[in-house]
Amino acid sequence: MFEAKLVCTHCGAEYPLASGLYKCPKCGAPLDVTYHYDDIANLIEDDDPWFRESPHVWKYWMFLPVSNLKRIVTLNEGGTRLYRLKRLEEKLGFGKLYVKYEGENPTGAFKDRGSSVEITKALEFHARKVIVASTGNMAASVSAYGAKAGLEVTIVVPEGTPGEKLTQARMYGAKVEVFGKTYDEALAEAERKAMEEDYYLTGNYHYRVEGQKTTGFEILDQLRYNVPDWIIVPIGAGTHLRAIWKGVKEFYKVGLVEDLPRIAGAQIEGYDAIVRAWKTGKPIEKVQKKVPTIASAIAVKKPVDGENVIRAVRESDGHLDTVTNRETAEAGMLLGREGIFVEPSSATALALAKKMREEGVIDKDETVVVVATGHGLKDVKTWEKVLSGDFVV
Amino acid sequence: MFEAKLVCTHCGAEYPLASGLYKCPKCGAPLDVTYHYDDIANLIEDDDPWFRESPHVWKYWMFLPVSNLKRIVTLNEGGTRLYRLKRLEEKLGFGKLYVKYEGENPTGAFKDRGSSVEITKALEFHARKVIVASTGNMAASVSAYGAKAGLEVTIVVPEGTPGEKLTQARMYGAKVEVFGKTYDEALAEAERKAMEEDYYLTGNYHYRVEGQKTTGFEILDQLRYNVPDWIIVPIGAGTHLRAIWKGVKEFYKVGLVEDLPRIAGAQIEGYDAIVRAWKTGKPIEKVQKKVPTIASAIAVKKPVDGENVIRAVRESDGHLDTVTNRETAEAGMLLGREGIFVEPSSATALALAKKMREEGVIDKDETVVVVATGHGLKDVKTWEKVLSGDFVV
Ligand SMILES: [Zn+2]
Ligand SMILES: [Zn+2]
Repeated sequence: MFEAKLVCTHCGAEYPLASGLYKCPKCGAPLDVTYHYDDIANLIEDDDPWFRESPHVWKYWMFLPVSNLKRIVTLNEGGTRLYRLKRLEEKLGFGKLYVKYEGENPTGAFKDRGSSVEITKALEFHARKVIVASTGNMAASVSAYGAKAGLEVTIVVPEGTPGEKLTQARMYGAKVEVFGKTYDEALAEAERKAMEEDYYLTGNYHYRVEGQKTTGFEILDQLRYNVPDWIIVPIGAGTHLRAIWKGVKEFYKVGLVEDLPRIAGAQIEGYDAIVRAWKTGKPIEKVQKKVPTIASAIAVKKPVDGENVIRAVRESDGHLDTVTNRETAEAGMLLGREGIFVEPSSATALALAKKMREEGVIDKDETVVVVATGHGLKDVKTWEKVLSGDFVV
Repeated sequence: MFEAKLVCTHCGAEYPLASGLYKCPKCGAPLDVTYHYDDIANLIEDDDPWFRESPHVWKYWMFLPVSNLKRIVTLNEGGTRLYRLKRLEEKLGFGKLYVKYEGENPTGAFKDRGSSVEITKALEFHARKVIVASTGNMAASVSAYGAKAGLEVTIVVPEGTPGEKLTQARMYGAKVEVFGKTYDEALAEAERKAMEEDYYLTGNYHYRVEGQKTTGFEILDQLRYNVPDWIIVPIGAGTHLRAIWKGVKEFYKVGLVEDLPRIAGAQIEGYDAIVRAWKTGKPIEKVQKKVPTIASAIAVKKPVDGENVIRAVRESDGHLDTVTNRETAEAGMLLGREGIFVEPSSATALALAKKMREEGVIDKDETVVVVATGHGLKDVKTWEKVLSGDFVV
């Protein structure tokens, strides 16, 4: 209702929302949705009931690109708890340490925020069929929301994808199509089918960003608009970090906060395309070698939002680094001992927080929020291997 | 604060709360906690803010046996969504069909409601060490809450328990102790250690019942005190069904509802000790044969709360029956197509609802609530086997 247009995140070109584009036709970069922020500011100013409402994705409907609130597709996503970990903050020497536990989402991962918006948009565009290239959490999430909306969902995966990774998506009724030998080939096929065969394309595009930015909204809301010093996010495609930064900037634009957090992103060792580019100042280059990792959900060779991650980190005076499998496993166990069971990839954010504290990048009085993106039940098998010594970290 | 005493569910003997008993010393049956219901009724009468509060376990603190609300151990349990499934209710011919999706709890299962109360009580009793005999969801849940409270947790399991089933509990930091050849032997050892070695015993005892009854509270609260015709619950130990019935009766006692639902319970084929006793009028006899099942979480040979289940069903003019593995698998897939991924055992409730509707036990205008007790991510492996045809249902 308050959305204005699509803007290219790389070249700045502008497009109407109705264009239905999913990347910039001029340069191929991801797009952003912009809003009439003054109107949003007027709407929420002094709206006491709105401020008192518990956080959940659609509380922030005025920041979301939706035409009809009666037709949103929701499964109770968002509203995940922000845990204060007092024992751990003392042990590790932080001022305050919070964990935003996205494993509480209906399919067990942060993706549900984005899927709720994407599938809501699919209905607005009168889609009947939805397609996504993914072998993991995104496939499961899109399948759940597609099912809820009564849409047919097709998951495109490369040859050799283990059947077990698709079980959750299939239980939501998704069809699986095998195409190509790599994820990039499967993705190209999904995009081709979207252009040529009337499928609605979902994935790491701008409507997903709109849903994912609510992680940032909720963190600020749950901290009663006291801005933390740091928000630390695992980086797979980089879309979640980009989205969180967009979200906190939007709260700043409408006057909800008077300050901005610094954003840090964690890549897992071996999959360091963004960290390397950030440290060297060179363009992002695809990682060539596949290495064993406990954090398969973020083991991305060339993150689609790499450039946007680096921009967010520059703008926020933030930080980027890799963490090792061992540091990640240790961080996962620290969270477990607080009653929070996370997917291995999710533990990279705490691992990075610890590293940044040890290196003096984070000060002892600072407030740190780490985003734990998925539930440990998403990848019990990897934790089994770590505990049994089958994967030596 | 409003709790009165412990009462034996079988012989009616009464004991003081401070006795720390976990079963009746006279007859060995489970105990119930009673309350000063008039005082509770006075407290909540016309308390508008209380009525407006979103449902979650500790909203109902006046119905819980807690001395100090500042010392509760919580991980954001409860407050799970009650989904209305309009497409499915039309397809299956119900008046209204709701699913209470307990998979949204922090460890992925309904057990967290009970663990929150049990571990809160453990702190009140000044426990340092907690023990539980379980190989599944209960072990994981007690481990999470024990970790949160800073207590040492020991899980007792029989020989031959697959390591993978204990991964989640171990990630929460629990120690695993192998004892005996059967679950009954492991349970006896946990009870022995509780008596002789200063462990606080958790499991299917009365404080767990107090937490689990909030499933019933929330259903009535979320329906704005319009009592459904049926609440249908999977039966493992029977404790959850017993607890839900206790909960709805307590809401009746304090005047929150003027009516009571009928309670139905589903056992999985092959593990039908309660159903058989109910149909024949004979005492509950332990099932002797172990048969392959997709619903391992409720494949219980002699449910500890069997007698209490039968009493609840009699009192509420309810229903008990078994469902087959095939019916259960089909029900799980029906839920998946609504965006709700459940553990196989959880699908038994919908399978039974469907069967009862087909047999005319449920009328076409009636409102039915099925309780889905755990997240599908809890047992992806079994769904994999069903989808791949490795387990033919
Ligand atoms: Zn461009
Ligand atoms: Zn007794």
